[in-house]
Amino acid sequence: MRFGLLGAGRIGQVHADAIATVPGAQLAAVADPMHEAAVAVAKAHGCDIRDIDTIARSDDIDAVIICTPTDTHADLIEQFARAGKAMFCEKPIDLSLSRVRDCLRVVEDLGAKLMVGFNRRFDPDFRAVRAEIDAGRVGAVEMVTIISRDPGAPPAEYIARSGGIFRDMTIHDFDVARWLLGEEIDTVMASGSVLVDPAIGDLGDYDSANLILRTASGKQAIISNSRRAAYGYDQRIEVLGAAGMVAARNTHETNIETAGTEGFGRPPLLNFFMTRYAAAYANEISEFVAAVSTGEPMPTTGHDGLVALALADAAVLSAAEGRAVRVADIMAGTT
Amino acid sequence: MRFGLLGAGRIGQVHADAIATVPGAQLAAVADPMHEAAVAVAKAHGCDIRDIDTIARSDDIDAVIICTPTDTHADLIEQFARAGKAMFCEKPIDLSLSRVRDCLRVVEDLGAKLMVGFNRRFDPDFRAVRAEIDAGRVGAVEMVTIISRDPGAPPAEYIARSGGIFRDMTIHDFDVARWLLGEEIDTVMASGSVLVDPAIGDLGDYDSANLILRTASGKQAIISNSRRAAYGYDQRIEVLGAAGMVAARNTHETNIETAGTEGFGRPPLLNFFMTRYAAAYANEISEFVAAVSTGEPMPTTGHDGLVALALADAAVLSAAEGRAVRVADIMAGTT
Amino acid sequence: MRFGLLGAGRIGQVHADAIATVPGAQLAAVADPMHEAAVAVAKAHGCDIRDIDTIARSDDIDAVIICTPTDTHADLIEQFARAGKAMFCEKPIDLSLSRVRDCLRVVEDLGAKLMVGFNRRFDPDFRAVRAEIDAGRVGAVEMVTIISRDPGAPPAEYIARSGGIFRDMTIHDFDVARWLLGEEIDTVMASGSVLVDPAIGDLGDYDSANLILRTASGKQAIISNSRRAAYGYDQRIEVLGAAGMVAARNTHETNIETAGTEGFGRPPLLNFFMTRYAAAYANEISEFVAAVSTGEPMPTTGHDGLVALALADAAVLSAAEGRAVRVADIMAGTT
Amino acid sequence: MRFGLLGAGRIGQVHADAIATVPGAQLAAVADPMHEAAVAVAKAHGCDIRDIDTIARSDDIDAVIICTPTDTHADLIEQFARAGKAMFCEKPIDLSLSRVRDCLRVVEDLGAKLMVGFNRRFDPDFRAVRAEIDAGRVGAVEMVTIISRDPGAPPAEYIARSGGIFRDMTIHDFDVARWLLGEEIDTVMASGSVLVDPAIGDLGDYDSANLILRTASGKQAIISNSRRAAYGYDQRIEVLGAAGMVAARNTHETNIETAGTEGFGRPPLLNFFMTRYAAAYANEISEFVAAVSTGEPMPTTGHDGLVALALADAAVLSAAEGRAVRVADIMAGTT
Repeated sequence: MRFGLLGAGRIGQVHADAIATVPGAQLAAVADPMHEAAVAVAKAHGCDIRDIDTIARSDDIDAVIICTPTDTHADLIEQFARAGKAMFCEKPIDLSLSRVRDCLRVVEDLGAKLMVGFNRRFDPDFRAVRAEIDAGRVGAVEMVTIISRDPGAPPAEYIARSGGIFRDMTIHDFDVARWLLGEEIDTVMASGSVLVDPAIGDLGDYDSANLILRTASGKQAIISNSRRAAYGYDQRIEVLGAAGMVAARNTHETNIETAGTEGFGRPPLLNFFMTRYAAAYANEISEFVAAVSTGEPMPTTGHDGLVALALADAAVLSAAEGRAVRVADIMAGTT
Repeated sequence: MRFGLLGAGRIGQVHADAIATVPGAQLAAVADPMHEAAVAVAKAHGCDIRDIDTIARSDDIDAVIICTPTDTHADLIEQFARAGKAMFCEKPIDLSLSRVRDCLRVVEDLGAKLMVGFNRRFDPDFRAVRAEIDAGRVGAVEMVTIISRDPGAPPAEYIARSGGIFRDMTIHDFDVARWLLGEEIDTVMASGSVLVDPAIGDLGDYDSANLILRTASGKQAIISNSRRAAYGYDQRIEVLGAAGMVAARNTHETNIETAGTEGFGRPPLLNFFMTRYAAAYANEISEFVAAVSTGEPMPTTGHDGLVALALADAAVLSAAEGRAVRVADIMAGTT
Repeated sequence: MRFGLLGAGRIGQVHADAIATVPGAQLAAVADPMHEAAVAVAKAHGCDIRDIDTIARSDDIDAVIICTPTDTHADLIEQFARAGKAMFCEKPIDLSLSRVRDCLRVVEDLGAKLMVGFNRRFDPDFRAVRAEIDAGRVGAVEMVTIISRDPGAPPAEYIARSGGIFRDMTIHDFDVARWLLGEEIDTVMASGSVLVDPAIGDLGDYDSANLILRTASGKQAIISNSRRAAYGYDQRIEVLGAAGMVAARNTHETNIETAGTEGFGRPPLLNFFMTRYAAAYANEISEFVAAVSTGEPMPTTGHDGLVALALADAAVLSAAEGRAVRVADIMAGTT
Repeated sequence: MRFGLLGAGRIGQVHADAIATVPGAQLAAVADPMHEAAVAVAKAHGCDIRDIDTIARSDDIDAVIICTPTDTHADLIEQFARAGKAMFCEKPIDLSLSRVRDCLRVVEDLGAKLMVGFNRRFDPDFRAVRAEIDAGRVGAVEMVTIISRDPGAPPAEYIARSGGIFRDMTIHDFDVARWLLGEEIDTVMASGSVLVDPAIGDLGDYDSANLILRTASGKQAIISNSRRAAYGYDQRIEVLGAAGMVAARNTHETNIETAGTEGFGRPPLLNFFMTRYAAAYANEISEFVAAVSTGEPMPTTGHDGLVALALADAAVLSAAEGRAVRVADIMAGTT
């Protein structure tokens, strides 16, 4: 399978490296308006530099990885769906629910193959949590607890374009909650605060938030987000079931313990999402290749992207109005 | 200080044992309509058996421990406030907010000394958490996470008289949240489910609940409750601040680790609240004695009991109506 | 069962408190040449003060706890064996193997009841380790690892009278090793160093030592001792068997975890043997009472004290000569 | 830097993969008498297949990785030292101390560059331990504890050619002990048993062993080895110093925790040395390349290999004779 890479930034490079490790996959071409970035990838991986339209027309390209800015995702998906390429697109497809819906209709009509990159589902620890559930070892799932905190808040200009904490950060947790609950979310309650950086509040966003999600059968998930955790990138999930519990613990920089008169110590957590989720990024590309090759369904779909965005929209509304918001109303556009 | 013990049940015996370990404190008399229970305590501690009214009139009694059924608490507090005795009363004072308010007015008017037993504030681990906060080591507190799960659901007859999960179980977590946030709760969002035992739902109660509390300044607490945790009595608290985090971990039956072909194992958690909080029960009586002796303020007051109950009432309403409920409205009786 | 307490020092007070919690046991009299110490115990426990000879002649005394200085133990055991009292004696019986042997002969000839206080066998965590072995969950025991380190070195005057690190400190570990291996030790290899305090070396003793013990069937135990651990009283045991492993972990001051930019932290270990082994001290008196009452064998015997001392003597010789020493040769007096 | 790979077996493939990830390094040729193995590596890495003599004569080869059977190492080192290639050789150089000494003399006389692969020094966790020591955070090092156990015993034919447990397995721990103690070992005490597999005993070897090493200044290390640990590949190190302690903990398959009525569980340890030390294998090749490029000293040298083997010889003698053996006597050939 020969790949075109759209976008040679940080995450694009991660995916280029991942392609190199997948047997039968090969990076054929890279496109990026920043010429230097494209050259760096081309050099590291021995591939061509082409522009996006050329890649779309290239017969020697089977699939593309879309790592361009968010506001280009939906257009590119439509273009490459028409070009008959399999597509891996970084989340989100778009910040507008209706734009996502339109885009997915195009994909569906054309029968195109689209995977949306929710990397956390591919993390070995989180997968082991899910495997315990699937093996029945926690019994019927009742509650999911997700604690998800960034090491530090991004700059204001990032926040301004991010779509807000629920669409930018919680969106991963929404997807993980759906994946672990095994049922669709029915209502969302969200509470947002500005505790870390007043500049974030000035932009109309929150930097700290807690959410309660519930399914029609009453299963619940809680999500606790903060843009700042002094001790590193805090990524924990825990699932309570009728027969027990399973949890994924945090990953520290190294696995040592120190002790002295002040007590015992362990290193901070891995601080950077690319380091923390390095194995997950490799796995997701590998599974994309496998799914395209075998014709099996994509492990994470455009629909997953759509639902996660609807949950984010519900959270925005819930936090603003202090009430539980029904996801069906968001999907139907009636709120 | 000479004590009268009102109620010789399970928790009464715990307090009788605690009195025996406090220098300068002595159990003088016990009252219980169940004669056998009173005899057992009298024998174990070498004290008299008297009826409640006699204890109220006894000049050789300085203080009473009220461990009778909940619906007698408020009347007894009023009686012993009038009798001029210092009082330690098990929570709650009453299940009705207005009754509690009336009772506390009597206490206040008489200048009586009343401590309400929120045992968790006296747990050594939880205190160490609070000490870290007070020492400034987590910076400004932003979020409190409380995971509080019982090993198994009580029988339906207990549930029926309990006032419901928020007044019976979450009430401890409300108090801990206030104590750790260091600010009063402004709004409560609650979501209750019946996942453990349908009989609980038939009684109009929940067995699983998640809550988000927030203060006027935007600090938040989340509480996760379940009436069942297969692995034992799950009691965790965690505080995120601007400079870091502090958490109290669970207490296992013993501190061993096993390993075999299936992996590594640790024993279940201490399964019973009296075992888990044994040190807390001893500490709270010791501090009651100290506060009465020195004339210092009570460590946990009737007001603490009142506010925790108001938070529970707010939770009941929030869970029913799917909206954030302002605690001030509950206190004012306007909702 | 009515007790006489011989010696009202620190450990004597611990035992007096323990007696108070055992149903059916009562402290009747205390003896101590330090009058103030005796008075303190008598006051706290409402017992008489008598001299040792009077206690030996007292018909109202069934059993004694011997907590006097080490060099009086053997004489007192003989005196109270003749007086027909059941005896609990703090380890060691004596620092001289032949004196211990003579003393135990007297005990045996008189059919007296003697328990020697190896408190660690009564620690709940260590017992849980042993219970795992007994339940067959580690399979056939192969190796025992004991890491045993004091928080800080005692003063030189203590060291001078202690009999040296192997007789004073390792003696507990020898007993634990025997108890967990389930076989007698055949040979001892020991290596001692002076790394903590040169004054200890000036007294001909070591402050740091490692030992390898082996049984006739080839099972082995390693013991690692130091007179100093900056992080507290380090008391770990671990047992490797054919089917797995079981370990007792250290006990921290409290069970909290902190986190900040420097990483994660836990409090130091409990620093004092009386705090760390509080439950063990209570358990051993309770089991002494039970064994005397029922006529069952003592849980730890004079023979256990004898063998542990022989192992210490073997270690002294091994460390001096750099060779494995056979315990049988020590017992036979042929080395 | 262009590499020749001698030996295309399991560990050869690991090194081939490592070369691929080091910027500036390239695998040019592979040699292996097993043609299929050579073809597999050649195909995976796009390199030539040549025989060993050809590689030695190839001007386009700068360095070789020697992963052939142990009994060929010394000859190959001499051949490639003469050929002027930089050499990375898997441990051990030879099982005979005198052969190693002769070989190293050739290396030294020719000024050849030789690194011996002690992979554990390159493990990120072990390096973090060493970094704590170097930063002075444990104070003066006093004791090193190494627990090193294989998941299961190798087949008898492997044992027969292995040189015995001390030369095959403990040799890694000897190197780690030297590296962490920061002083040369003066004496070795070893105790070997056959507890796992009688066939190992029939071959004159042990499957379970404990050792005490000491330096001239009295610092000590203990090593605990077993050929079997039901729970996985057990690899722990711990360093006690005057100011505290630092330890590297084991690595589990995943970082999850489960809980149920039986208690809490974690997965077994990573079971395979190549998985456990994957990062270490990559790091050691990367540092070999760096050292060759810069002319800096090799991170692990032929001398390190020689000393570790001498320690193993000392252990063999100590275990046989039940006495402490001086390493200087082994090095001098006087025992």
